[in-house]
Amino acid sequence: VRAAVLAAARELVAEQGYEPVSIEQIAARAGVHKTTVYRRWPTKARLVMDAVEDMSAERVPVPDTGALGSDLRRFSRAIVANLNTKGATALARALVAAAADSEELRASAAQFWRRRFGVAGEMVARAVERREIPADTDSDALIETLIGPLYVRVLLTDVAVDRRLADRVADVTAEAAKAGLFSR
Amino acid sequence: VRAAVLAAARELVAEQGYEPVSIEQIAARAGVHKTTVYRRWPTKARLVMDAVEDMSAERVPVPDTGALGSDLRRFSRAIVANLNTKGATALARALVAAAADSEELRASAAQFWRRRFGVAGEMVARAVERREIPADTDSDALIETLIGPLYVRVLLTDVAVDRRLADRVADVTAEAAKAGLFSR
Repeated sequence: VRAAVLAAARELVAEQGYEPVSIEQIAARAGVHKTTVYRRWPTKARLVMDAVEDMSAERVPVPDTGALGSDLRRFSRAIVANLNTKGATALARALVAAAADSEELRASAAQFWRRRFGVAGEMVARAVERREIPADTDSDALIETLIGPLYVRVLLTDVAVDRRLADRVADVTAEAAKAGLFSR
Repeated sequence: VRAAVLAAARELVAEQGYEPVSIEQIAARAGVHKTTVYRRWPTKARLVMDAVEDMSAERVPVPDTGALGSDLRRFSRAIVANLNTKGATALARALVAAAADSEELRASAAQFWRRRFGVAGEMVARAVERREIPADTDSDALIETLIGPLYVRVLLTDVAVDRRLADRVADVTAEAAKAGLFSR
Protein backbone atom coordinates (compact mmCIF):
# COMPACT_ATOMS: atom_id res chain seq x y z
CA VAL A 1 0.00 0.00 0.00
CA ARG A 2 2.71 2.47 1.01
CA ALA A 3 4.69 1.99 -2.22
CA ALA A 4 1.53 2.34 -4.35
CA VAL A 5 0.51 5.58 -2.62
CA LEU A 6 3.99 7.10 -2.93
CA ALA A 7 4.27 6.14 -6.61
CA ALA A 8 0.83 7.64 -7.28
CA ALA A 9 1.83 10.87 -5.52
CA ARG A 10 5.01 11.18 -7.63
CA GLU A 11 3.20 10.49 -10.88
CA LEU A 12 0.35 12.90 -10.25
CA VAL A 13 2.59 15.79 -9.17
CA ALA A 14 4.90 15.23 -12.16
CA GLU A 15 1.85 15.23 -14.48
CA GLN A 16 -0.25 18.04 -13.02
CA GLY A 17 1.92 20.04 -10.64
CA TYR A 18 1.63 20.08 -6.86
CA GLU A 19 -1.19 22.51 -6.24
CA PRO A 20 -4.06 20.86 -8.19
CA VAL A 21 -3.39 17.34 -6.88
CA SER A 22 -5.50 16.20 -3.92
CA ILE A 23 -5.03 13.38 -1.41
CA GLU A 24 -8.31 11.92 -2.75
CA GLN A 25 -6.82 11.75 -6.25
CA ILE A 26 -3.64 10.12 -4.98
CA ALA A 27 -5.68 7.52 -3.09
CA ALA A 28 -7.81 6.82 -6.17
CA ARG A 29 -4.76 6.38 -8.42
CA ALA A 30 -3.19 4.04 -5.86
CA GLY A 31 -6.43 2.09 -5.55
CA VAL A 32 -6.79 2.61 -1.79
CA HIS A 33 -9.36 4.39 0.36
CA LYS A 34 -8.60 8.01 1.16
CA THR A 35 -8.86 7.42 4.92
CA THR A 36 -5.97 4.96 4.61
CA VAL A 37 -3.85 7.79 3.19
CA TYR A 38 -5.00 10.38 5.75
CA ARG A 39 -4.22 7.94 8.55
CA ARG A 40 -0.56 7.66 7.49
CA TRP A 41 0.18 11.16 6.21
CA PRO A 42 -1.12 14.23 8.04
CA THR A 43 -0.68 16.59 5.06
CA LYS A 44 -0.20 16.55 1.30
CA ALA A 45 3.19 18.25 1.74
CA ARG A 46 4.45 15.44 3.98
CA LEU A 47 3.05 12.77 1.68
CA VAL A 48 4.63 14.22 -1.45
CA MET A 49 8.02 14.82 0.17
CA ASP A 50 7.91 11.28 1.59
CA ALA A 51 7.31 10.08 -1.96
CA VAL A 52 10.37 11.99 -3.16
CA GLU A 53 12.49 10.70 -0.28
CA ASP A 54 11.42 7.12 -0.93
CA MET A 55 12.46 7.46 -4.60
CA SER A 56 15.78 9.10 -3.68
CA ALA A 57 16.67 6.44 -1.12
CA GLU A 58 15.93 3.67 -3.61
CA ARG A 59 17.48 5.13 -6.75
CA VAL A 60 20.34 7.12 -5.22
CA PRO A 61 21.85 4.99 -2.46
CA VAL A 62 24.94 6.31 -0.70
CA PRO A 63 27.91 4.24 -1.92
CA ASP A 64 30.82 2.94 0.13
CA THR A 65 33.63 2.09 -2.28
CA GLY A 66 36.53 2.83 0.07
CA ALA A 67 37.61 6.13 -1.50
CA LEU A 68 35.98 9.57 -1.66
CA GLY A 69 36.55 10.08 -5.39
CA SER A 70 34.85 6.85 -6.43
CA ASP A 71 32.07 7.29 -3.85
CA LEU A 72 31.26 10.71 -5.28
CA ARG A 73 31.36 9.49 -8.88
CA ARG A 74 28.99 6.64 -8.13
CA PHE A 75 26.71 8.97 -6.20
CA SER A 76 26.59 11.71 -8.87
CA ARG A 77 26.03 9.15 -11.64
CA ALA A 78 23.04 7.78 -9.71
CA ILE A 79 21.61 11.30 -9.31
CA VAL A 80 22.03 11.94 -13.05
CA ALA A 81 20.35 8.62 -13.89
CA ASN A 82 17.50 9.50 -11.53
CA LEU A 83 17.08 12.99 -13.03
CA ASN A 84 16.92 11.36 -16.46
CA THR A 85 14.04 9.04 -15.58
CA LYS A 86 10.60 9.94 -16.90
CA GLY A 87 8.87 12.63 -14.87
CA ALA A 88 11.82 13.42 -12.58
CA THR A 89 12.53 16.87 -14.00
CA ALA A 90 8.83 17.73 -14.06
CA LEU A 91 8.54 16.62 -10.45
CA ALA A 92 11.54 18.73 -9.38
CA ARG A 93 10.23 21.82 -11.17
CA ALA A 94 6.72 21.31 -9.80
CA LEU A 95 8.02 21.17 -6.22
CA VAL A 96 10.23 24.25 -6.59
CA ALA A 97 7.24 26.01 -8.12
CA ALA A 98 4.78 25.07 -5.39
CA ALA A 99 7.26 25.86 -2.61
CA ALA A 100 7.05 29.50 -3.73
CA ASP A 101 3.41 29.59 -2.62
CA SER A 102 3.33 27.11 0.25
CA GLU A 103 5.13 27.70 3.53
CA GLU A 104 4.24 24.15 4.55
CA LEU A 105 5.73 22.54 1.44
CA ARG A 106 8.81 24.73 1.77
CA ALA A 107 9.31 23.45 5.32
CA SER A 108 8.77 19.80 4.32
CA ALA A 109 11.14 20.20 1.36
CA ALA A 110 13.83 21.83 3.53
CA GLN A 111 13.51 18.92 5.96
CA PHE A 112 13.81 16.42 3.10
CA TRP A 113 17.03 18.10 1.93
CA ARG A 114 18.47 18.18 5.45
CA ARG A 115 17.91 14.43 5.76
CA ARG A 116 19.36 13.71 2.29
CA PHE A 117 22.39 15.90 3.01
CA GLY A 118 22.78 14.04 6.30
CA VAL A 119 22.74 10.62 4.61
CA ALA A 120 25.15 11.79 1.89
CA GLY A 121 27.38 13.14 4.66
CA GLU A 122 28.27 9.54 5.55
CA MET A 123 30.59 9.51 2.52
CA VAL A 124 32.30 12.59 3.89
CA ALA A 125 32.59 11.16 7.41
CA ARG A 126 34.25 7.99 6.07
CA ALA A 127 36.68 10.07 3.98
CA VAL A 128 37.60 12.01 7.13
CA GLU A 129 38.17 8.73 9.02
CA ARG A 130 40.45 7.54 6.22
CA ARG A 131 42.29 10.89 6.47
CA GLU A 132 41.62 11.65 2.82
CA ILE A 133 40.20 15.08 3.69
CA PRO A 134 40.50 17.47 6.68
CA ALA A 135 38.54 16.65 9.84
CA ASP A 136 36.75 20.03 9.74
CA THR A 137 35.27 19.45 6.26
CA ASP A 138 31.76 20.90 6.02
CA SER A 139 29.82 18.05 4.45
CA ASP A 140 26.82 20.22 3.48
CA ALA A 141 29.16 22.52 1.56
CA LEU A 142 30.60 19.52 -0.26
CA ILE A 143 27.19 18.10 -1.17
CA GLU A 144 25.79 21.40 -2.43
CA THR A 145 28.84 21.80 -4.65
CA LEU A 146 28.32 18.31 -6.03
CA ILE A 147 24.64 18.71 -6.88
CA GLY A 148 24.73 22.41 -7.87
CA PRO A 149 25.59 22.08 -11.57
CA LEU A 150 23.08 19.24 -11.99
CA TYR A 151 20.19 21.36 -10.73
CA VAL A 152 21.39 24.46 -12.63
CA ARG A 153 20.86 22.44 -15.81
CA VAL A 154 17.60 20.83 -14.79
CA LEU A 155 15.96 23.92 -13.30
CA LEU A 156 17.57 26.87 -15.06
CA THR A 157 19.47 26.35 -18.29
CA ASP A 158 17.50 23.35 -19.59
CA VAL A 159 20.68 21.56 -20.70
CA ALA A 160 20.86 17.74 -20.60
CA VAL A 161 22.65 16.10 -17.67
CA ASP A 162 24.89 13.18 -18.53
CA ARG A 163 27.57 10.88 -17.16
CA ARG A 164 30.34 13.23 -18.23
CA LEU A 165 28.83 15.98 -16.09
CA ALA A 166 28.38 13.51 -13.22
CA ASP A 167 32.07 12.61 -13.31
CA ARG A 168 33.14 16.25 -13.55
CA VAL A 169 31.13 17.40 -10.53
CA ALA A 170 32.46 14.43 -8.54
CA ASP A 171 36.08 15.20 -9.48
CA VAL A 172 35.80 18.95 -8.82
CA THR A 173 34.21 18.27 -5.44
CA ALA A 174 36.69 15.58 -4.37
CA GLU A 175 39.68 17.74 -5.33
CA ALA A 176 38.27 20.79 -3.54
CA ALA A 177 37.66 18.69 -0.42
CA LYS A 178 41.22 17.34 -0.49
CA ALA A 179 42.56 20.89 -0.87
CA GLY A 180 40.66 21.91 2.28
CA LEU A 181 38.31 24.29 0.46
CA PHE A 182 35.31 22.99 2.43
CA SER A 183 36.96 23.47 5.82
CA ARG A 184 34.65 25.24 8.25
CA VAL B 1 9.67 54.03 -20.39
CA ARG B 2 11.72 50.89 -20.97
CA ALA B 3 13.11 50.89 -17.41
CA ALA B 4 9.65 51.48 -15.92
CA VAL B 5 8.11 48.61 -17.87
CA LEU B 6 10.91 46.19 -16.96
CA ALA B 7 10.76 47.13 -13.26
CA ALA B 8 6.96 46.68 -13.29
CA ALA B 9 7.35 43.24 -14.91
CA ARG B 10 9.86 42.12 -12.27
CA GLU B 11 7.74 43.39 -9.38
CA LEU B 12 4.51 41.83 -10.59
CA VAL B 13 6.02 38.41 -11.32
CA ALA B 14 7.79 38.39 -7.94
CA GLU B 15 4.50 39.29 -6.22
CA GLN B 16 2.00 37.14 -8.11
CA GLY B 17 3.95 34.55 -10.09
CA TYR B 18 4.37 34.48 -13.86
CA GLU B 19 1.16 32.92 -15.07
CA PRO B 20 -1.45 35.34 -13.65
CA VAL B 21 0.39 38.50 -14.72
CA SER B 22 -0.74 40.11 -18.00
CA ILE B 23 0.96 42.61 -20.28
CA GLU B 24 -1.97 44.98 -19.56
CA GLN B 25 -1.19 44.83 -15.83
CA ILE B 26 2.50 45.47 -16.44
CA ALA B 27 1.65 48.48 -18.61
CA ALA B 28 -0.73 49.83 -15.96
CA ARG B 29 1.84 49.46 -13.17
CA ALA B 30 4.45 51.21 -15.34
CA GLY B 31 1.99 53.97 -16.20
CA VAL B 32 2.20 53.47 -19.97
CA HIS B 33 -0.31 52.42 -22.60
CA LYS B 34 -0.44 48.71 -23.34
CA THR B 35 0.16 49.24 -27.06
CA THR B 36 3.53 50.81 -26.14
CA VAL B 37 4.47 47.55 -24.45
CA TYR B 38 3.14 45.30 -27.23
CA ARG B 39 5.07 47.36 -29.77
CA ARG B 40 8.39 46.65 -28.06
CA TRP B 41 7.90 43.11 -26.74
CA PRO B 42 6.17 40.46 -28.86
CA THR B 43 5.38 38.15 -25.92
CA LYS B 44 5.14 38.17 -22.14
CA ALA B 45 7.94 35.58 -21.98
CA ARG B 46 10.33 37.86 -23.86
CA LEU B 47 9.33 40.89 -21.80
CA VAL B 48 9.82 39.14 -18.47
CA MET B 49 13.17 37.59 -19.45
CA ASP B 50 14.29 40.99 -20.79
CA ALA B 51 13.40 42.38 -17.37
CA VAL B 52 15.53 39.73 -15.66
CA GLU B 53 18.42 40.31 -18.06
CA ASP B 54 18.27 44.07 -17.53
CA MET B 55 18.50 43.57 -13.75
CA SER B 56 21.35 41.03 -14.06
CA ALA B 57 23.39 43.28 -16.34
CA GLU B 58 22.98 46.21 -13.96
CA ARG B 59 23.46 44.45 -10.62
CA VAL B 60 25.90 41.71 -11.64
CA PRO B 61 28.42 43.28 -14.02
CA VAL B 62 31.30 41.10 -15.20
CA PRO B 63 34.43 42.30 -13.38
CA ASP B 64 37.93 42.68 -14.81
CA THR B 65 40.36 42.78 -11.90
CA GLY B 66 43.32 41.21 -13.69
CA ALA B 67 43.14 37.77 -12.05
CA LEU B 68 40.62 34.93 -12.26
CA GLY B 69 40.33 34.38 -8.51
CA SER B 70 39.41 37.99 -7.74
CA ASP B 71 37.15 38.27 -10.80
CA LEU B 72 35.17 35.24 -9.64
CA ARG B 73 34.95 36.49 -6.04
CA ARG B 74 33.64 39.86 -7.15
CA PHE B 75 31.19 38.19 -9.53
CA SER B 76 29.83 35.67 -7.00
CA ARG B 77 29.49 38.36 -4.33
CA ALA B 78 27.41 40.45 -6.75
CA ILE B 79 25.16 37.45 -7.49
CA VAL B 80 24.68 36.82 -3.78
CA ALA B 81 23.86 40.50 -3.17
CA ASN B 82 21.38 40.38 -6.05
CA LEU B 83 19.74 37.18 -4.75
CA ASN B 84 19.39 38.88 -1.35
CA THR B 85 17.48 41.89 -2.70
CA LYS B 86 13.74 42.00 -2.10
CA GLY B 87 11.74 39.85 -4.48
CA ALA B 88 14.75 38.21 -6.18
CA THR B 89 14.19 34.74 -4.74
CA ALA B 90 10.45 34.95 -5.39
CA LEU B 91 11.17 36.00 -8.98
CA ALA B 92 13.61 33.10 -9.51
CA ARG B 93 11.17 30.56 -8.07
CA ALA B 94 8.27 31.97 -10.08
CA LEU B 95 10.21 31.65 -13.33
CA VAL B 96 11.36 28.09 -12.64
CA ALA B 97 7.77 27.28 -11.76
CA ALA B 98 6.22 28.78 -14.87
CA ALA B 99 8.86 27.26 -17.14
CA ALA B 100 7.44 23.85 -16.18
CA ASP B 101 4.20 24.75 -17.97
CA SER B 102 5.35 27.08 -20.74
CA GLU B 103 7.50 25.93 -23.63
CA GLU B 104 7.82 29.56 -24.70
CA LEU B 105 9.10 30.78 -21.33
CA ARG B 106 11.46 27.80 -21.13
CA ALA B 107 12.95 28.79 -24.51
CA SER B 108 13.27 32.47 -23.51
CA ALA B 109 14.83 31.52 -20.19
CA ALA B 110 17.32 29.15 -21.85
CA GLN B 111 18.28 31.98 -24.22
CA PHE B 112 18.74 34.37 -21.29
CA TRP B 113 21.05 31.90 -19.57
CA ARG B 114 23.07 31.32 -22.76
CA ARG B 115 23.63 35.07 -23.07
CA ARG B 116 24.54 35.46 -19.39
CA PHE B 117 26.95 32.50 -19.58
CA GLY B 118 28.45 34.10 -22.68
CA VAL B 119 29.02 37.42 -20.93
CA ALA B 120 30.46 35.71 -17.84
CA GLY B 121 32.70 33.72 -20.18
CA GLU B 122 34.71 36.91 -20.79
CA MET B 123 36.34 36.37 -17.37
CA VAL B 124 37.37 32.90 -18.49
CA ALA B 125 38.69 34.11 -21.86
CA ARG B 126 40.85 36.71 -20.14
CA ALA B 127 42.19 34.11 -17.70
CA VAL B 128 43.12 31.90 -20.67
CA GLU B 129 44.92 34.84 -22.34
CA ARG B 130 46.86 35.44 -19.11
CA ARG B 131 47.72 31.71 -19.12
CA GLU B 132 46.18 31.25 -15.68
CA ILE B 133 44.07 28.34 -16.90
CA PRO B 134 44.25 25.88 -19.83
CA ALA B 135 43.22 27.12 -23.28
CA ASP B 136 40.59 24.37 -23.62
CA THR B 137 38.70 25.42 -20.46
CA ASP B 138 34.94 25.02 -20.91
CA SER B 139 33.60 28.32 -19.65
CA ASP B 140 30.00 27.10 -19.32
CA ALA B 141 31.21 24.29 -17.06
CA LEU B 142 33.06 26.82 -14.93
CA ILE B 143 30.07 29.17 -14.63
CA GLU B 144 27.60 26.41 -13.75
CA THR B 145 29.95 25.23 -11.00
CA LEU B 146 30.17 28.78 -9.65
CA ILE B 147 26.42 29.44 -9.51
CA GLY B 148 25.31 25.89 -8.62
CA PRO B 149 25.50 26.05 -4.83
CA LEU B 150 23.84 29.49 -4.80
CA TYR B 151 20.76 28.22 -6.64
CA VAL B 152 20.69 24.97 -4.63
CA ARG B 153 20.15 27.12 -1.54
CA VAL B 154 17.71 29.56 -3.14
CA LEU B 155 15.58 27.00 -4.98
CA LEU B 156 15.97 23.76 -3.02
CA THR B 157 17.31 23.82 0.52
CA ASP B 158 16.02 27.31 1.49
CA VAL B 159 19.32 28.17 3.24
CA ALA B 160 20.56 31.78 3.27
CA VAL B 161 23.25 32.78 0.77
CA ASP B 162 26.01 35.00 2.12
CA ARG B 163 29.42 36.42 1.34
CA ARG B 164 31.18 33.42 2.85
CA LEU B 165 29.42 31.13 0.37
CA ALA B 166 30.20 33.55 -2.46
CA ASP B 167 33.91 33.40 -1.66
CA ARG B 168 33.87 29.63 -1.32
CA VAL B 169 32.22 29.00 -4.68
CA ALA B 170 34.67 31.42 -6.30
CA ASP B 171 37.68 29.70 -4.73
CA VAL B 172 36.51 26.16 -5.53
CA THR B 173 35.83 27.16 -9.14
CA ALA B 174 39.10 29.03 -9.64
CA GLU B 175 41.16 26.15 -8.21
CA ALA B 176 39.33 23.57 -10.31
CA ALA B 177 39.91 25.67 -13.43
CA LYS B 178 43.63 25.98 -12.65
CA ALA B 179 43.83 22.21 -12.12
CA GLY B 180 42.35 21.67 -15.60
CA LEU B 181 39.12 20.10 -14.32
CA PHE B 182 37.03 22.12 -16.77
CA SER B 183 39.07 21.12 -19.82
CA ARG B 184 36.86 19.99 -22.70
